[in-house]
Amino acid sequence: GPVAAMRELRCVCLTITQGVHPKMIASLQVTASGPHCPRVEVVASLKNGKQICLDPEAPLFKKVIQKMLDSGNKQN
Amino acid sequence: GPVAAMRELRCVCLTITQGVHPKMIASLQVTASGPHCPRVEVVASLKNGKQICLDPEAPLFKKVIQKMLDSGNKQN
Repeated sequence: GPVAAMRELRCVCLTITQGVHPKMIASLQVTASGPHCPRVEVVASLKNGKQICLDPEAPLFKKVIQKMLDSGNKQN
Repeated sequence: GPVAAMRELRCVCLTITQGVHPKMIASLQVTASGPHCPRVEVVASLKNGKQICLDPEAPLFKKVIQKMLDSGNKQN
């Protein structure tokens, strides 16, 4: 898949997926830049079991985070 | 520790840690509310290896996300 095994200490995101519907996301992992990888990486685990990388710069990412936080409040 | 084993399909955050310095965070896992747990949960893995839960409602959380995203740009 597009996400290399997490245990290797280097960048995991090989490709970035542009469009994803926030409702499809089960969880989101934001990894800070560091010795292992010079850039912030965002891995989304989808409800269908797939993992994709999102672009931390994209407005979509901020929308996704906001939607996930809101979903908690509405307890839908 | 405060975070129950992730593999059990239920809420993992037993206690919420209020103050954490964003620079201490290696990665952040945001899990949407769902059948396993009715609330959004935010688990921060710290650079010292510890895991803590953050309050997704707290302004601190939004600051942490922002700081992590910014850190990627400055490549510090």
